[in-house]
Amino acid sequence: MSRLDPLFAPRGIVVVGASRDPGKLGAVMARSLTRFPGTVVGVNARDADPAAGRYAGVADAAAASPDPLDLAVLCVPAAVSAQALADAGRAGVRAALVCSGGYAEAGGRGTGYQQDLLAAARDAGVALLGPNTSGFLVPSRDLTASFVPGAAAVPAGPVAVVAASGGMNHALAFLLADADLGASLAVGLGNAVDVTAAEVLTHLAEDDATRAVGLHVESVTDGPALVDALRALTVHKPVVALVVGRNDVAEFARSHTGALATSWRTTRAALRAAGAVLVDDERQLVDALIALSAVRLDPCPDPGVGVVTAQAGPGLLHVDGLRGRGVAVPPLAQATRTALADLLPPLTYQANPVDTGRPDPSFGRVLSTVAADAGIDLVSVYALSEPDALDLPATVESASAGPVVVGLGGPADQVLPQRQALRKHGVPAVDGPTALTVAVTALVDDARARSRRRIDGPRPPMRATVPQRDLDEDEAKTVLEQLGIATPPRRPCSDRAAAHRALAELPGPLAVKVLDAAVTHKSDVGGVHLGIRDAAGLDDALEALEAIGATRFLVEAMAPAGVDLIVGASRDPVFGPVVLVGLGGVVAEALADVAITPAPVTAEDAGALADELSGRALLDGFRGGPVADRAALGRVLAALGDLLVTHPHVDDVEINPLRVTADGLLALDAVLTLGREVRP
Amino acid sequence: MSRLDPLFAPRGIVVVGASRDPGKLGAVMARSLTRFPGTVVGVNARDADPAAGRYAGVADAAAASPDPLDLAVLCVPAAVSAQALADAGRAGVRAALVCSGGYAEAGGRGTGYQQDLLAAARDAGVALLGPNTSGFLVPSRDLTASFVPGAAAVPAGPVAVVAASGGMNHALAFLLADADLGASLAVGLGNAVDVTAAEVLTHLAEDDATRAVGLHVESVTDGPALVDALRALTVHKPVVALVVGRNDVAEFARSHTGALATSWRTTRAALRAAGAVLVDDERQLVDALIALSAVRLDPCPDPGVGVVTAQAGPGLLHVDGLRGRGVAVPPLAQATRTALADLLPPLTYQANPVDTGRPDPSFGRVLSTVAADAGIDLVSVYALSEPDALDLPATVESASAGPVVVGLGGPADQVLPQRQALRKHGVPAVDGPTALTVAVTALVDDARARSRRRIDGPRPPMRATVPQRDLDEDEAKTVLEQLGIATPPRRPCSDRAAAHRALAELPGPLAVKVLDAAVTHKSDVGGVHLGIRDAAGLDDALEALEAIGATRFLVEAMAPAGVDLIVGASRDPVFGPVVLVGLGGVVAEALADVAITPAPVTAEDAGALADELSGRALLDGFRGGPVADRAALGRVLAALGDLLVTHPHVDDVEINPLRVTADGLLALDAVLTLGREVRP
Repeated sequence: MSRLDPLFAPRGIVVVGASRDPGKLGAVMARSLTRFPGTVVGVNARDADPAAGRYAGVADAAAASPDPLDLAVLCVPAAVSAQALADAGRAGVRAALVCSGGYAEAGGRGTGYQQDLLAAARDAGVALLGPNTSGFLVPSRDLTASFVPGAAAVPAGPVAVVAASGGMNHALAFLLADADLGASLAVGLGNAVDVTAAEVLTHLAEDDATRAVGLHVESVTDGPALVDALRALTVHKPVVALVVGRNDVAEFARSHTGALATSWRTTRAALRAAGAVLVDDERQLVDALIALSAVRLDPCPDPGVGVVTAQAGPGLLHVDGLRGRGVAVPPLAQATRTALADLLPPLTYQANPVDTGRPDPSFGRVLSTVAADAGIDLVSVYALSEPDALDLPATVESASAGPVVVGLGGPADQVLPQRQALRKHGVPAVDGPTALTVAVTALVDDARARSRRRIDGPRPPMRATVPQRDLDEDEAKTVLEQLGIATPPRRPCSDRAAAHRALAELPGPLAVKVLDAAVTHKSDVGGVHLGIRDAAGLDDALEALEAIGATRFLVEAMAPAGVDLIVGASRDPVFGPVVLVGLGGVVAEALADVAITPAPVTAEDAGALADELSGRALLDGFRGGPVADRAALGRVLAALGDLLVTHPHVDDVEINPLRVTADGLLALDAVLTLGREVRP
Repeated sequence: MSRLDPLFAPRGIVVVGASRDPGKLGAVMARSLTRFPGTVVGVNARDADPAAGRYAGVADAAAASPDPLDLAVLCVPAAVSAQALADAGRAGVRAALVCSGGYAEAGGRGTGYQQDLLAAARDAGVALLGPNTSGFLVPSRDLTASFVPGAAAVPAGPVAVVAASGGMNHALAFLLADADLGASLAVGLGNAVDVTAAEVLTHLAEDDATRAVGLHVESVTDGPALVDALRALTVHKPVVALVVGRNDVAEFARSHTGALATSWRTTRAALRAAGAVLVDDERQLVDALIALSAVRLDPCPDPGVGVVTAQAGPGLLHVDGLRGRGVAVPPLAQATRTALADLLPPLTYQANPVDTGRPDPSFGRVLSTVAADAGIDLVSVYALSEPDALDLPATVESASAGPVVVGLGGPADQVLPQRQALRKHGVPAVDGPTALTVAVTALVDDARARSRRRIDGPRPPMRATVPQRDLDEDEAKTVLEQLGIATPPRRPCSDRAAAHRALAELPGPLAVKVLDAAVTHKSDVGGVHLGIRDAAGLDDALEALEAIGATRFLVEAMAPAGVDLIVGASRDPVFGPVVLVGLGGVVAEALADVAITPAPVTAEDAGALADELSGRALLDGFRGGPVADRAALGRVLAALGDLLVTHPHVDDVEINPLRVTADGLLALDAVLTLGREVRP
């Protein structure tokens, strides 16, 4: 029994603030609820009329109701909503929906009203949805707790929508209806003071009617709870997430739900690591849900897609899109191609994609042949509808081709019944080559997410010892070495004599730097001298460093040439430790070409992060340069993440640069930042 | 009278290869044409049956036909198609459609069949569409010359589709029908041996039924003809272009600098410069056509969009998308905000976007108020359908708010009539926040394209003198100076004594380089020495250069620090001269972050090119660096483009780097490549 059952599966409903004025919210909500088969009663202390179903109080209404009144829909002003909720709770109500605004998002007194409302809900043990939302729908129960006209037209279906915004919830539900999919639940969270996305996701894990979830996110307040809920849910059901706020929309977003904008990148990285499939817009969300509500691939790090198309042009657009999204469309095995050559006319392209030409009776055997290829985990089919030439649903079913997804073009009245028949056979169908690309990518991303090994439980203790004070570069590098990260040979020196001893001991040329925990941007203050080869050069460098106030020096062997990365770990205020990798240098910085994932992370997943960089070609021997060992890079990133996870007083660690050399990775500079509360 | 009138507006049609076997192409095509109101007759030499409308030859059919047989649909094997076309031409046919394949795309004998077919068409003066296409539709004439079932269901509408592929043509026509838009013409060009995209575009300029054109491009053979046709057409009608093939070129682009400009990029750049609006997929194509077939903004370099939304969540997604696409959503003037404050409840966000909260009767006045703002050229409205609260079509019409585009969510049966009513008032309506973003962006891009000044006619002669032989760096820089491009002070030196004189004359420090037209990658061979300040250093450098075989030297003052660009002009084999700009350095190169446009180009448009770079932040004083003067950069690029336009023997010019300094732009190295045919 979930805490949200009284909200989403109530036996009886009471509308508090029911009104005989048809334009008032109370009347609108009561009208929306007319199709609900259980009891729906109203409460209006100043205009009670029991014969018309309007009582003076919730207790009276409850006494007169054949069903327990599990859900109260509160249509009263913000100033009195806490009191109304408390009254409802006393009368046995277990869940409440507050649609109206005027709470935290409005500022001023609204903030207090919201606090009072939440306190009342907690006191009464009532699950509170809202405030500031247009409500929710459970079509299979004929439950339309929404003030949006037409919401009752959304049919029951296999997809749940969990949206930050009431408007987006309805927009998505209507789009799902247009896609002939429908909804099991569609909820807009509004200010989400009590019932959160995390709690709804947890509830949906047990909801048999829900086969896939669409998640719309504007800002996140409790990152770990959301991540935990997603991790638990995505084991059983796919989740497709749309995160808004890539660009500069923070001010407007704040006015919307009263919440600060969360980092778009970090939120996406955290949801993805927790198993969600990411999309960029609401149409992609619908296409991904069409696919994932019908079929799920087995977990696989890189599923191969076989493309079978009856028309070359749309097939080309589809494959172009798949390649652009990094989906593998591998060459078919020779045996597969030989078999296809027997099935198809010689004019057609029979590699991958397989262009069948116009569909004929061999189409089903082509599907089975491609699906049987060892490198193929999913068959993607595009065709224009030709019902006289090919019964596509029957063909796909009889082909037993494993997971199949179909893009079907044609007149709507021809296409719709074929889509429905395909769906009955467990085969999702979308309307065009790009929708097909999105659907295939979603299936692939979901299979990839489930193939990643998750890290649960506490991390093993690390051997790194981090003092409770700011560290200079030598100490920071000592910590890196304890983490197994290579650094160039170096000597910390307290005077010139020590520096000259270092010159004699270390392989040249050398770098000579100011050594001072208080100087974090050494280059900017003239604190770095490179290419020192002899005593005279060393003395010049030391003199220059002393002139800027240096009393200690770091003398270090210079690293061989290579490609520079920036890697690090930091604490996101919402999601906690994250690791990041980017290319070094000012161009990469200007491009903000950075990949990020939450910590802890396995070395394998962290190494794969580098392949998300736009400039990843630089890491693969670009122009004769070195190749970055992804396994070694992954170990560095995983170790930095573990450092933050196991050392709460470390706020941030940055290696800039981490140089990729022909001999491996070398940390050339390092800065550790300690949390303020533990600084001496 | 267009050459294509007999093809797209025939009076009578003859199907050559008509058959009584219903599965044969000839029978399929005859069935597709049954709704055509003019004469449709068949020809089959071996199975003539005049009573059933099948004649022994085209001449017989023509003699028996009440209408002139303008169009022949040839359904005969490739080997005899040329003969069939010649026969038809002799009988008065002026246009032919050949759907079947087996021509150049099949190779072998097919190439010869295609040559013969084209020769026959040219001899007979027949406009030939195809071969290897599924045909075309003119719904307003009930003309369905297509073998795709259901094609006749596409309704007449304001949009023409011109697709490289027959499959894409039909896929797009069905999507336009789904969008309640329909087609004026939908044609797949297939092998396009005679009737090309350029010719169809030219034809459409005179077609009153066509208000906007969707263009699908896979490859281009005659770039200048396509560009000329687009330039002429887009003055009168908007064109939205989808170019396929992004991902065949990415790998190639990484390989080296000269290849950074790839054919996919170049095709897009050329179509855009010719006035087309670019989209990334077929759904965007449909949304852009919904918008542009209803409304077109006045030419404007950067139209301002006012966003009015009845629901904050979808509005946020929409504005996030607009910002990501570089569309201006400017703050509203204070007077506008004051006026809005009188219209709207205080809780709503009234900057831009304007969040109205649920629509009420003030909605129309909100629209007019936003539209009246001096910074607003287009109002974008998102709302969920609430017909009881707001008659959106009537409100938008009476608001007289100038150009408006609407995103309308809700149940399909509510939304469709409202969309139709809006369209009747000239207001395009799409279904969701992202579709709205695409529609708005298309209107903005079209207005921007028309605000760019076109360069027509021959370029004025340039003062640059380019010898008919390979140039060394000094000579190349002399050419740049003639073009008005600044270079550092330098001396070409034939011996050491001259180099020492240069050391005395030039401001230090100096660069000393090998001077040899045959050495284009000087750094790679140790041919560049930097930071020379004295005679000893100069002698060391000269000795090292002599050791690699240098006999001449370039001694040059070193440039101040700054940000390095790569700029150049080259000849695209399809589209001719293009100019390009990218950031310098290996990271930018690995990212293939390059912007390109055809030459000739105005300095203004060329300067704007820099703002297409992902790393453009580097050009705007990033981290205290210099700001690149866009006007000066534009003059450099325009001059390089003009150099290629006016000097046919120059194949390529590259300045790498062009340094952005606090004092302006400086060309630090230059290579001119001459065409092989004119090399000595």
